[in-house]
Amino acid sequence: MSSKQSDRRRFLKESAALAGLAVGGIPLANAQLSAPAANERRPDEWYDYGVRSRFVKSMRIGTNGRFGKDPRPGVPRDYGFRTPLQDTFGIITPAPLHFIINHGYDPPDIDPREHRLMIHGLVDRPLIFTLEELQRLPSVSRIHFVECAGNATAGGQGFMPGYVRTQPEATVQQIFGLTSCSEWTGVQLSVLLQEAGLKKEGKWIVAEGDEQGRHTKSLPIEKALDDVLVVYAQNGEPIRPEQGYPLRLLVPGWEGINNVKWLRRIKVMDKPSMGKREITAYTSLRLDGKARWFQFELGPKSAITRPSGGQLLPGPGFYEITGLAWSGGGTIRRVEVSTDNGRTWKDAQLQEPIHRKAHTRFRLPWNWNGEETVLLSRCTDDQGWVQPSVADLGKVLGVEISLALFRERPDAITHFNAIQPWKVNRDGSVKNAIFT
Amino acid sequence: MSSKQSDRRRFLKESAALAGLAVGGIPLANAQLSAPAANERRPDEWYDYGVRSRFVKSMRIGTNGRFGKDPRPGVPRDYGFRTPLQDTFGIITPAPLHFIINHGYDPPDIDPREHRLMIHGLVDRPLIFTLEELQRLPSVSRIHFVECAGNATAGGQGFMPGYVRTQPEATVQQIFGLTSCSEWTGVQLSVLLQEAGLKKEGKWIVAEGDEQGRHTKSLPIEKALDDVLVVYAQNGEPIRPEQGYPLRLLVPGWEGINNVKWLRRIKVMDKPSMGKREITAYTSLRLDGKARWFQFELGPKSAITRPSGGQLLPGPGFYEITGLAWSGGGTIRRVEVSTDNGRTWKDAQLQEPIHRKAHTRFRLPWNWNGEETVLLSRCTDDQGWVQPSVADLGKVLGVEISLALFRERPDAITHFNAIQPWKVNRDGSVKNAIFT
Repeated sequence: MSSKQSDRRRFLKESAALAGLAVGGIPLANAQLSAPAANERRPDEWYDYGVRSRFVKSMRIGTNGRFGKDPRPGVPRDYGFRTPLQDTFGIITPAPLHFIINHGYDPPDIDPREHRLMIHGLVDRPLIFTLEELQRLPSVSRIHFVECAGNATAGGQGFMPGYVRTQPEATVQQIFGLTSCSEWTGVQLSVLLQEAGLKKEGKWIVAEGDEQGRHTKSLPIEKALDDVLVVYAQNGEPIRPEQGYPLRLLVPGWEGINNVKWLRRIKVMDKPSMGKREITAYTSLRLDGKARWFQFELGPKSAITRPSGGQLLPGPGFYEITGLAWSGGGTIRRVEVSTDNGRTWKDAQLQEPIHRKAHTRFRLPWNWNGEETVLLSRCTDDQGWVQPSVADLGKVLGVEISLALFRERPDAITHFNAIQPWKVNRDGSVKNAIFT
Repeated sequence: MSSKQSDRRRFLKESAALAGLAVGGIPLANAQLSAPAANERRPDEWYDYGVRSRFVKSMRIGTNGRFGKDPRPGVPRDYGFRTPLQDTFGIITPAPLHFIINHGYDPPDIDPREHRLMIHGLVDRPLIFTLEELQRLPSVSRIHFVECAGNATAGGQGFMPGYVRTQPEATVQQIFGLTSCSEWTGVQLSVLLQEAGLKKEGKWIVAEGDEQGRHTKSLPIEKALDDVLVVYAQNGEPIRPEQGYPLRLLVPGWEGINNVKWLRRIKVMDKPSMGKREITAYTSLRLDGKARWFQFELGPKSAITRPSGGQLLPGPGFYEITGLAWSGGGTIRRVEVSTDNGRTWKDAQLQEPIHRKAHTRFRLPWNWNGEETVLLSRCTDDQGWVQPSVADLGKVLGVEISLALFRERPDAITHFNAIQPWKVNRDGSVKNAIFT
């Protein structure tokens, strides 16, 4: 910074795109100010319960398009719907845009007065709760992410035709849109288990949902007694039908599949239930043909959301680089950003306060000189875990991770948390550069 | 707690209403578990952008009912719509339920591509920004409340026919519903003013909105350079039309009237603009007929949201008392709750992390013995300000605050932040007891 300018911020002056505004200003006589516009919406469209501006069109997209047919046999429709991370701000994901994976069934239409939660199995006193009873109990609110294990992979629920994951045209929504973050409110599962009188033989719980497919999932008792919640509210209002209305399990930092929706039953057992989504799906199929079971914790992971794949920078100049980082292992402590394909790294600013097992917004000012480059982000959590490069992740897994592997063995790598590269071309276009 | 029970939480066992569940349990054979329900909603109703369960019906209500006619001459419709605080959880208010005060005009229908923000007046370089340009600048996200100065009063925008404020039937939504809390994202106003080159004669700013009435409001430059934001996002998505889409001013901790919506212009001046909503309305009319101008900071204030006016406790037993506290002066440090009309007080648990100038959720376990009582909450902020009783507030203002005063001189008291009493009757009904 020159001495003459040292008393002022320079991001506008250094920006070719914005320099006209900052240095000369637009003469006021010529200013194009908008005229007051009448609103033709009827009051009943927004007084009671608001709606978005008609100019705001962000939406969830399905794996195969809006309502695409799932290519897997037996799966009636596309049930993976992704959050438009490129259009989000801060750390809260709007509830209507929270990602959805429903395993083949539409959300059930549950009358909360009819719904019950049963706690039974290896307990002294089996309990049945109505929603109203649960809402009288001591509650907590916590901000946590929920992420599908297949997020950012090419296999499993991350499956996309043509392996979109590896395509230059892939967007941050397509690649990373299976993670979302909310303020969840509910009761600590430990409170319910204590109230039921947990027997000492109880080593696992199995949770069951109330949808047609009756999804079940096992969790070790240590996690159940640690930070698991039975939640009824998201971002200040009752959870949405596609998020489990009226009740869901919230299992901070662990694979999304654990967060059982439309929760109706928790059974305490001495062993896991060995359900189909813990021993066949949601495992890591190794290259030797064996699968790794009961792998739960997610991250550390990060992605730059702006600029990101599919976006177009209008020209050289100042941009804020921003994105999200999260780790199932705890709290994000650091996010580094490289604007020169990893040659140098700078610490990004983290949005305070940083929440445990939650999306963490990072931001870094950047003056783009108009040349081709690659943008990277790399996060570190409070356990010291650092997000790896693709090559380093391969070393950990004992396999060379390549485009060919991704295409031929899409199930070989779940929990794919390698650093995401976004290539910025001279024409301002931004592309996924995972294997280039 | 007896020694036999000392190893277990007792809230369920002590509760008559829940005791059957906790002690004996319901025999599983008789358990009424809900059957899986089919959902008849069409996917296009919830895949793209979710909607609430049809069983969730919380809504904003107008001062005079849903779309009531405002009784004041010249005001075409009821433009004060209140947040259903009794139905909210945690600290985030859902954007569609954020309170609205629009001063007589529907929200304008602004095309963001046409909208401009002009910064001019006592600056070196007048600037005009598009929304896209603003969104390239360094951004911050902060959780803050916005509250109308008339919230919880009987006058001004808090006006209600028959002075609902003092009626036993008044709900927490009717009394306190003109406050809401969101994660706001935008640019610091100080950055924009520095970029424009603030002249040293600039002592005030005046902000102007783009609605038909062109609301303007003055702010001293010290506040403008402190923590004021120009925001474009709320709770992770673009702000809603009724909250100022595409841009609004966010003035943490100060009267809602300062948070100019549909923001189009900020002029730096050497004195305030003396607009009608700073010298005629939004003043404190004293009993001697003079008015106090430029009174900005709000709180400290708190209200128990459950149990609260209009609710019905189904019977004696365990309840969580919960509510919200906030202060324009800074951070809430303490909330005390009395379940015996002020005879004794207990510290409530505060939801962490506590945000500056934000709603703070408090919670206290309570076993209701079925007798008549009064519930109170009292907060303290980090400046040491304590929420006063009605009598103490009167001493500060030099006036005896009474039902008669509220009814006869509804404009005499704005910034009414006295402790709110909720009376619990033996039949479980909860009533507003402000002057009983």
